[in-house]
Order: sequence, then structure tokens, then C-alpha cells
Amino acid sequence: MLYLVGLGLADETDITVRGLEVVKKAERVYLEAYTAILLVDKEKLEAFYGRPVIEADREKVESASDEILADADKVDVAFLVVGDPFGATTHTDLVLRARELGIESKVIPNASIMSGIGCTGLQLYNFGQTVSMVFFTENWKPSSYYDRVKENVQLGLHTLVLLDIKVKEPSLENMARGRLVYEPPRYMTVAQCASQMLETEEERQEGIFGPDSLAVGAARVGAADQKLVAGTLKELAEVDMGRPLHSLVLIGKRAHDLEKDYIQQFAVDWATFDANWQKGGYGSM
Amino acid sequence: MLYLVGLGLADETDITVRGLEVVKKAERVYLEAYTAILLVDKEKLEAFYGRPVIEADREKVESASDEILADADKVDVAFLVVGDPFGATTHTDLVLRARELGIESKVIPNASIMSGIGCTGLQLYNFGQTVSMVFFTENWKPSSYYDRVKENVQLGLHTLVLLDIKVKEPSLENMARGRLVYEPPRYMTVAQCASQMLETEEERQEGIFGPDSLAVGAARVGAADQKLVAGTLKELAEVDMGRPLHSLVLIGKRAHDLEKDYIQQFAVDWATFDANWQKGGYGSM
Repeated sequence: MLYLVGLGLADETDITVRGLEVVKKAERVYLEAYTAILLVDKEKLEAFYGRPVIEADREKVESASDEILADADKVDVAFLVVGDPFGATTHTDLVLRARELGIESKVIPNASIMSGIGCTGLQLYNFGQTVSMVFFTENWKPSSYYDRVKENVQLGLHTLVLLDIKVKEPSLENMARGRLVYEPPRYMTVAQCASQMLETEEERQEGIFGPDSLAVGAARVGAADQKLVAGTLKELAEVDMGRPLHSLVLIGKRAHDLEKDYIQQFAVDWATFDANWQKGGYGSM
Repeated sequence: MLYLVGLGLADETDITVRGLEVVKKAERVYLEAYTAILLVDKEKLEAFYGRPVIEADREKVESASDEILADADKVDVAFLVVGDPFGATTHTDLVLRARELGIESKVIPNASIMSGIGCTGLQLYNFGQTVSMVFFTENWKPSSYYDRVKENVQLGLHTLVLLDIKVKEPSLENMARGRLVYEPPRYMTVAQCASQMLETEEERQEGIFGPDSLAVGAARVGAADQKLVAGTLKELAEVDMGRPLHSLVLIGKRAHDLEKDYIQQFAVDWATFDANWQKGGYGSM
């Protein structure tokens, strides 16, 4: 049996009781280690599970999945995923490959950032589609996300923006020299996301959002040091929210006053937040 | 401290290790028992936690919350919520009331149906806003949900439809006679939801969906007997998916072929599903 086990969002104790039972008795335990991270390292997980954990990078999961699935028709294999196994990243490929090999799968759900973002007090009912923000480079500033945000904004819906992480990326400079060296990991911050959004708006000029648009930055959702900050994109572009992972919600104008009552406690500056709420026509759609 | 603890979706073992630690040491343990249910009863939870559990109905949470919060500035109180505390139902009211009383709160996240529905293989990125379907009566068939579904359909996005449950509802007939008697609990089925959707379309005639529109019914997400069925609304209106809780996803036309590859394993009838996929222009937006 292949078990896809959600680990939740913050640390080793966020696994469910059922998930932990599975991990403890599995023959092999893999950790999907390239789309999200927990706030604790592999050694801490191993100590908590009492089991060795094999890190699976993108290449192993996408191209060498038969190694993960070896013998899983006879023994139990646990594949651990930060968040939920079918959340922000969907591991349907692995399940389909298992099925081709005659291997059954079971999913152990857990909190995902897609629902955990409810901790902002913004109603999950009022979210439109989710978008991803990648790291811009000098010559590559993809703005297809802007079209999806536009659809949400026009309906007055909130948009969850998931932020890029780069873990175990080969260094292009070194590859050119024939050496496989990995770049240090990078995690996009709320400030970087807000400032890239403003950069896209500058370029596209469609007035979908701007420096005064209201948003909420979220860091380390579910952890003891979870941090939420509400403010304008201009304010968030300057904010320091500490260590990863971060995400951002662009607030839609169909927002309720009840949502405002909750999020204003996180405002960078309450008066600015309130003024922009009125000026922007939030709560009036 | 007030702890809002997510219980996840299926049974007592879906609580997280961290959540269980909180429950075991809390002075009082309340269970929010009116917006969703686990598939196990209160006695099973009490046996698993080794603690008495106090059921909190809507009235207690919304009007008598100070009873729940009593002394929570000095002792730990755990408030258990099926799914995630800020998922489909947001318990921000209780947190705000606690704050007014000078009581700190902490949230322990867990799987919510809002992310657990990813088990269908439909990408959470491609969902628009979520809607709720209430039980229609002879004279009351609210169709405001239809306007929101329309917005999703026009963008080609999936729609998660959450289905009504009626737990501890006073019997109107008995209330008229001055007696407080509760109706037996009722849980909407996928079949009932699909047939109410077709009824609304009959009435509104805007062609937003119809008997041939494709959808996925989900029952008992995360449980050992989880069941998924994909088919047309006409087919789903006839399907028996067993005991609660159920939900339904109306598939958007922006669907990818990868999503189809995954969901077709759940089709009532593969040929019908495939024919309607082609005919309806799914995957072409």
C-alpha cells in the first residue's frame, strides 16, 4: 500500500494521530522535499517518528517514482507531503503510476495552506482562484498570474497568492562549467511578492490593483510564531515578516465588515487601513 | 488560553498530535456540534481523549459563549471543530469575544473539506468561490447560490458545493404548540443536491448547467470508506453514496486533461463521461 500522508503546516507534531501510526509501521518513509517545507529539519522528524526518512527531490518523484513504489504491492510505503497531499501541489501522478503498477493508495489528509489561510479571518467562501508568484529575474517577469487575479478582482473576490520557493535548484553558472552544484535555498517573502505585484501593475497598467490595494501577509501559518500583517501593498512591500514560509492574500471588494473587524487587529497602521478600506469601496460590492 | 482545535474530517484519529496534547491537558473540552459531524460519536471521542466532552450547539456558541470562555484567562479551554476551525465555518466571533475579555486564543489547524476536496484529483488552483446548498422546501427554494456558480462557470472554474446539514433543529410544528422538540438530524445527499441544482436551472433558464454537466460527488472524504463518483448531474441525481457527509463539485471547462485522467476512474459510466467531456468542451478553455 502507498500512503500519502499530509504533515500539516508547521512542525513534527502537526501530523495526525492516524498519519503517525502509518509512518511508524511503514517499511520505507519518503519526504517530498521540494514544494514546501516544515519549520523543522529532517533529523527532528526522524527522532519524532523513530524512523529513517528518505528525502525525495523533484527528480526522484517525477522521474524515478518506481524506486519509491518498489514492492509497495507487498509492503507499506509512506510518502510524506508538507500540508495536504492533494493541496497546493497535487500528487495525482504518483497515485496514477501506482495504480498502473497494481498498487493501492490511501491519502491521509491534513491542513493545507489553501484552507489554513482562513486564520486571517477572511472567509474561504469569498476566495476566487489561487495563483502562484514566481521569483522575477532581470529578463523574466511572467505576468500570467495577473490575468487570474483580474478575474477575481472583477468579481470582488479574495486572491490567495502562493509564493515561490527554490530548494535544491542546480546552479546554472556551475552547470555551464559541467559541475552539478546547488544554489542555496530561497523562499519568497511577502515584501518581495507585494513589490513584484506592483511591478506587474506598472507594466500592465490595467488598474487591477495598486499601491493602496489592501492585502494580508501571512507567515508560518499554524506555527507558534505565526505572523499576520494587514496593510496596503505599498506597506507590505516594506514589511519584514521573518523566516519562511510566507503567503499573501489580496483582499476582494466583496469583503464583509465582519472580515474587516477581524483583520484590522493585524493592520500595520489602523488609520491607513481604515481610510483605504473606505476609499477603495471595500465591503460595498 | 482558548484553543480552537481542528479535528479533521473522518474519525477520532484525525486529530493532530499537537491537538491531542492540548485536549488532554485542557480544563474543559467543548465540541462544536452543529455545522459538521465526524463519523464517530461523542463517546468514542471521550474514550480516545480520556476526557469528558461537552457538546456545544449553535445557541451556546453564538449566544452563550461566555460560558465557554469562563476563566479561560486562567485555565486552558479547548473548543473542538470538525475540519478546520477557520475552514467552511469560521469561528472568528468566538475569538473576537475572547479578545474583548482579555483571553488569548490559539488555533490548531487541520484538514478542511475546502482543501480535502483535492482528493478528487481536481486542482485546488482551478476552483472559484465555494457555495452552500440548503434544503429546498415546498415554498422556499433559494437560488442565490446560482449567481455565484454562474460567475465560476463563466470563468471555466470548478465550484465546490457544500451541502446542508440540520442537526438539533427545533420542530416548527411542535414549537407552535409550545413544546421544544428537535427534528431528527438530516444530511443532504449528492443526489439531492444534483436534483436541486437541476430544479434551479429549470426555473432560472440561464443555461449555466444542465443534466449533461459534469460533476463529482464526494462522500466521507478522508475516511476508509471514502467514495467518489463522477458523472453528469442527471446521473448524480440518481446515485446512492451512502452515509454522510457529502459534497459535490461542478467541473469547470478550464479543466485539464490531467484532471480528467484522474477522475475518470470514478465515472458512473466511462463512455458517457468521455462523450460529455468532448461535447461540453471541457479542457478547451
